[in-house]
Amino acid sequence: MSDPTGRGVFLSFEGIDGSGKSTQARLLAEALRATGREVVLTREPGGSPGAEEIRALVLQGDPDRWSAETEILLFTAARRDHLERTIRPALARGAVVICDRFADSTRMYQGLSRGNLRGVVDQLHALMIGVEPDLTVLIDMDPEVGLARAKGRQGVEERFEDFGADLQRRMRAGFLSLAGEFPERFRVIDGARSPEAVAGDVLAVVGGALASV
Amino acid sequence: MSDPTGRGVFLSFEGIDGSGKSTQARLLAEALRATGREVVLTREPGGSPGAEEIRALVLQGDPDRWSAETEILLFTAARRDHLERTIRPALARGAVVICDRFADSTRMYQGLSRGNLRGVVDQLHALMIGVEPDLTVLIDMDPEVGLARAKGRQGVEERFEDFGADLQRRMRAGFLSLAGEFPERFRVIDGARSPEAVAGDVLAVVGGALASV
Repeated sequence: MSDPTGRGVFLSFEGIDGSGKSTQARLLAEALRATGREVVLTREPGGSPGAEEIRALVLQGDPDRWSAETEILLFTAARRDHLERTIRPALARGAVVICDRFADSTRMYQGLSRGNLRGVVDQLHALMIGVEPDLTVLIDMDPEVGLARAKGRQGVEERFEDFGADLQRRMRAGFLSLAGEFPERFRVIDGARSPEAVAGDVLAVVGGALASV
Repeated sequence: MSDPTGRGVFLSFEGIDGSGKSTQARLLAEALRATGREVVLTREPGGSPGAEEIRALVLQGDPDRWSAETEILLFTAARRDHLERTIRPALARGAVVICDRFADSTRMYQGLSRGNLRGVVDQLHALMIGVEPDLTVLIDMDPEVGLARAKGRQGVEERFEDFGADLQRRMRAGFLSLAGEFPERFRVIDGARSPEAVAGDVLAVVGGALASV
């Protein structure tokens, strides 16, 4: 992370709904804690009290409740709060921050799926956030498998999953394209295996990154 | 307004707390309705169902609940929703839109009072809003008089008024400076008189603008 005050390591997990990234983020947190590191496991949108309130505003309600542009602004507001109140303080303490989704999800879900707004997303990110993870683990997954997994879960936050299988296919392709755009930062891991097998690969790529920081 | 689809007229009122701008906005709306015009009287932050929810998130709670940067993002999200759902449709119908505060308040309260963030406010405005009122009426008022008036009111939305008299003095100077920056758009009216006398001046400057649109 470019912030000179940060002594910790900033990791993010990305992937389509049902890819298993939240499970993998949790398993990684447990594995790193077992080695004695301080780990802050967090998520977006949300991850700080203020950002969680913005999350509730964005994710609940009708799919057309907000325009794509308003949604991008709300996600960026939540990210700014999360960065200031949770991520930066944890990195300053030397912790490993593991974030379930970060700016790449906004690049995909708002920048790609809801009109061609990637340019707006990038300009807003440069202006108000300006930080990328040290390493981003993309859990790649066939959308049909991912959607079946996601539908097995409960919850009111169904807005994005309601956009359906076609969106998930475009999102998968988009995430893979993004990984190609930032090859230094991204590691792509095949998620269509047992959680234990995936977790082994995650630990291997993250372990290498931790050793080099 | 630069939007080529807009056939209406977009007016805003600005000024420090207690300047009487809300009263003047209401009196102007009544006067224009009496002439048979459709008038949409609205306010910021808020003015659409989504923006009102964002307003509640921003204005209630401790003064340090949000950083200046997060606050600017939330205000811009609310403004975008307000513009899309209330202001643009009304202008497209040919209505007169009277808005109690618009982007100039963000330029002042977030751009000036909470750190030197005017540049960020302006870049965000250019990227996500891009619209200015046809005419902005600045009700100018001595801050001591304004603060005494504001404290006479009830309400939970006290965050900004709690910043106190020194802020109000800087805001008054800032608004007058802004009026100098945009002389074509601003009209400055002395608010330290009876509401009826002020309303007469408002109607005179707005009447001139309506005739020329």
